[in-house]
Amino acid sequence: MKREGILFIISAPSGAGKTTLCKEVIDIFPNLRHSVSYTTRPPRPGEVHGRDYFFVSREEFDRMVAAGEFAEHAEVHGNFYGTALKTLEEYRKCGIDVILDIDCQGARQLKEKYHGGVYIFILPPSFQELRRRLDTRSSDSDEIIERRIRGAAWEIRESRWYDYIIVNDVFSKAVEELKSVLIAEGCRSSRVMEAVSELFEI
Amino acid sequence: MKREGILFIISAPSGAGKTTLCKEVIDIFPNLRHSVSYTTRPPRPGEVHGRDYFFVSREEFDRMVAAGEFAEHAEVHGNFYGTALKTLEEYRKCGIDVILDIDCQGARQLKEKYHGGVYIFILPPSFQELRRRLDTRSSDSDEIIERRIRGAAWEIRESRWYDYIIVNDVFSKAVEELKSVLIAEGCRSSRVMEAVSELFEI
Repeated sequence: MKREGILFIISAPSGAGKTTLCKEVIDIFPNLRHSVSYTTRPPRPGEVHGRDYFFVSREEFDRMVAAGEFAEHAEVHGNFYGTALKTLEEYRKCGIDVILDIDCQGARQLKEKYHGGVYIFILPPSFQELRRRLDTRSSDSDEIIERRIRGAAWEIRESRWYDYIIVNDVFSKAVEELKSVLIAEGCRSSRVMEAVSELFEI
Repeated sequence: MKREGILFIISAPSGAGKTTLCKEVIDIFPNLRHSVSYTTRPPRPGEVHGRDYFFVSREEFDRMVAAGEFAEHAEVHGNFYGTALKTLEEYRKCGIDVILDIDCQGARQLKEKYHGGVYIFILPPSFQELRRRLDTRSSDSDEIIERRIRGAAWEIRESRWYDYIIVNDVFSKAVEELKSVLIAEGCRSSRVMEAVSELFEI
């Protein structure tokens, strides 16, 4: 049964475990990919144009912004990153599901420009646990960790307008929940109806 | 994390495999029950009041109908069956998820009276396969089977307004999809938000 690809937008505060969770589900579903973004940052060794990123000049990036070709874009540490509307449309038409791993601001931009996306927010189980994870994994100063916690508090308030919230307390449970959202969204009647109409002449 | 119970309404044409699917997921989830209905039919040997059905007199049933106490009710082969709004509210408040296995007409009645239910339709993979299943499992005459197929065609058209459609082609896949819908709906931000607000003082 053929259906259009679904766009899943996943956000989380730093330390919630988003990257590991996304990697886990992309390994499980053969029809699920990470979206390939445009960036002005130079390729790192081993990175492939079109697989890891579309590497473009600052001029080309600015042209794309001016032409409204991005569904969302942002500046991070002096480099520019963006998701092209065209890329999303190609995935959708080819029936490929896509994970777009972006922050709340990018997600908000996208929600205004792109219909039909599914918004998922990953939460840590508590601020205490988030602090513990940030303490353990980094050699950052207390000040930087405090700044991250404050940033997380801001992002967590944004979770209100997402479609789903997954609390990453026990990792295997969070994977099961993320998997379930991906599968369930593929069963939404609005998405299945076209294929089914043909079968049953509804 | 505590949340309110969810009501899942599952419909399917005869032969789609709904009963087996529901049994399978109820065995998996300890927090998921079959809704207990009211009926005017006398108990069969081994049936327990309050577990299998609430057995009531015709007079009591009519009183409940008149008092608007049913979320949905129907007559089947001269007996009356109904789901009490009170029962659904109790499950919801106790955080127990409930499967209500009813036909499209009952589901429509319910949708008008009860908010927050999740509507799932189980489809056979094709009319050919539905016919094969009905032929195999019953000793019914061709005429009765034809009537069932026509009934199925009507019911399948109703699937349009359900939230999810699960095509029961490969049984293990259909179980996975139904499981996923049950888990994913528990992650809907509208349902998780209250518990999460406390954790993060959102």
